[in-house]
Amino acid sequence: MDKHKLIECHERIKPFIHNTPVLHSRLIDGIASSTIFFKCENFQRMGAFKMRGAANAIMQLSEGQKQNGVVTHSSGNFAQALSLAAQSLGVTAYIVMPSNAPQVKKDAVKEYGGRIFECEPTLLARKTATKKIQQEKGATFLHPSNDDAVIIGQGTACKELLELHPNLDYVFAPVGGGGLIAGTALAANYFGNNCKVIGGEPFEADDAYRSLLSGTIETNTTTNTIADGLKTQLGDRNFPIIQEYVERIVRVSEEEIISSMRIIWERLKIVCEPSCAVALAAVLKEKEVFRSKKIGVIISGGNVDLGKLPF
Amino acid sequence: MDKHKLIECHERIKPFIHNTPVLHSRLIDGIASSTIFFKCENFQRMGAFKMRGAANAIMQLSEGQKQNGVVTHSSGNFAQALSLAAQSLGVTAYIVMPSNAPQVKKDAVKEYGGRIFECEPTLLARKTATKKIQQEKGATFLHPSNDDAVIIGQGTACKELLELHPNLDYVFAPVGGGGLIAGTALAANYFGNNCKVIGGEPFEADDAYRSLLSGTIETNTTTNTIADGLKTQLGDRNFPIIQEYVERIVRVSEEEIISSMRIIWERLKIVCEPSCAVALAAVLKEKEVFRSKKIGVIISGGNVDLGKLPF
Repeated sequence: MDKHKLIECHERIKPFIHNTPVLHSRLIDGIASSTIFFKCENFQRMGAFKMRGAANAIMQLSEGQKQNGVVTHSSGNFAQALSLAAQSLGVTAYIVMPSNAPQVKKDAVKEYGGRIFECEPTLLARKTATKKIQQEKGATFLHPSNDDAVIIGQGTACKELLELHPNLDYVFAPVGGGGLIAGTALAANYFGNNCKVIGGEPFEADDAYRSLLSGTIETNTTTNTIADGLKTQLGDRNFPIIQEYVERIVRVSEEEIISSMRIIWERLKIVCEPSCAVALAAVLKEKEVFRSKKIGVIISGGNVDLGKLPF
Repeated sequence: MDKHKLIECHERIKPFIHNTPVLHSRLIDGIASSTIFFKCENFQRMGAFKMRGAANAIMQLSEGQKQNGVVTHSSGNFAQALSLAAQSLGVTAYIVMPSNAPQVKKDAVKEYGGRIFECEPTLLARKTATKKIQQEKGATFLHPSNDDAVIIGQGTACKELLELHPNLDYVFAPVGGGGLIAGTALAANYFGNNCKVIGGEPFEADDAYRSLLSGTIETNTTTNTIADGLKTQLGDRNFPIIQEYVERIVRVSEEEIISSMRIIWERLKIVCEPSCAVALAAVLKEKEVFRSKKIGVIISGGNVDLGKLPF
């Protein structure tokens, strides 16, 4: 990967994504003792940054591959992203979802034209169902985070942020499967002015923190976090990028996540997922370290169940 | 009032307000069967359109008046708006608030530099306290909605919306004290291309609807509505403007308000007050009437108690 690949990717997906707004709050600056610009991917199409990587991954396929469709297993934002990106590009998306996935998630995928295949809620059933669709339909499997085209696509959010604010000292992003933080780190490296990237991760799902320490991909020992988008683990495509380009990872508690989420909702007046709040929580956790710095925070998505808010 | 007064007002207050973003959602368009552009005054400074009118009203004062400060009675957004506008302009703001006002509202006023005078929660006590400050401090009383400078200031939100989308068929705004709807109606008349303005009002606080019918300012018989910003009544400065320039008022139920609020939060991913949802609820209530039209909706503010959401 290099700078030009990310530039080409951005040009390629521009017709299918929003250049999302960047918000700023003097009151949050006051709380943080720094200047923070929030890149609001909750306003992205289908409500999350995942639209970027999904669009890029599909567009990188050959015409023959596109005709046979794409398949993924996800009950989260990537399922919606792949469905909408595929619909926008005239491609069929097959989504393998566990039978116990919330109805609202299934409805969202259907709304965007995704074709759902339900399976038992086990890892084996999920893999078997996915394999079957690959074989029967000839569909191409796309991974939500461990795919070069997806990683580069996710990096375009940070690229847009740096186009508006070229002199950021830091960009913070949450760490889940690793696609967003890896893409963000590449973009900051290519387009920033000595801009460092720091990940935010819940103590309750700190696989990436421990992976950076041990030098090998670790799994989560618990996933007891409100940040439900961050329960996944890193992969062999994104981990080397994270090792090379991510400064470090700051872990935060559930209380810190909820408190930061409340700050974002109350002060920025936006609806965001708990996962997004992890990045702000990381800034606030070490506010003395980042005092007076210019900081970007990636607000990763806004698909939240309003019936299950923590406040 | 004329077109040039509104243009001058807008130029005057521009350094003190945000030109707030306009959001659009294909999914909401699908629900409404029309094209809706949301002018997001929840992103305005202090979180509501009231900043516009407050800034304009203070800037219209003489130097001598500014030195003696301004006073209002409000426990809502105008208290915060007057405090922040005054602070930005180096003027003292005295805010008369009932002693039983929520602590969070008092804190917000203090945060913006307003000086709070508490009074008993009665109309008489409020008026007495206000009068006392006018006499003792020489402060100028500014009304939250029944003041020409305030009305014109509120109209700048619709002016900005029409600058982006000049061919709107309709603009919807909620009707509370009448300042926003009157200013919106003036702006649509001056800057729209045959753009009609329609008010949204809860059945439970339908004083303006009845005022237009009877031709005289009516009071609310109930104020049992979740839209707590809309419990006030019209005044003699804004009522004639509303009579002349507002097409009509559509009343909506509490269920319709909550349902529309949920649509805004879930689809636009923004935090807004129940009052804002009244305007969208009015569009949806008569969606057949407005089918295929280009519609603006003023999202009036985002200062909501996250601990008391209706979902």
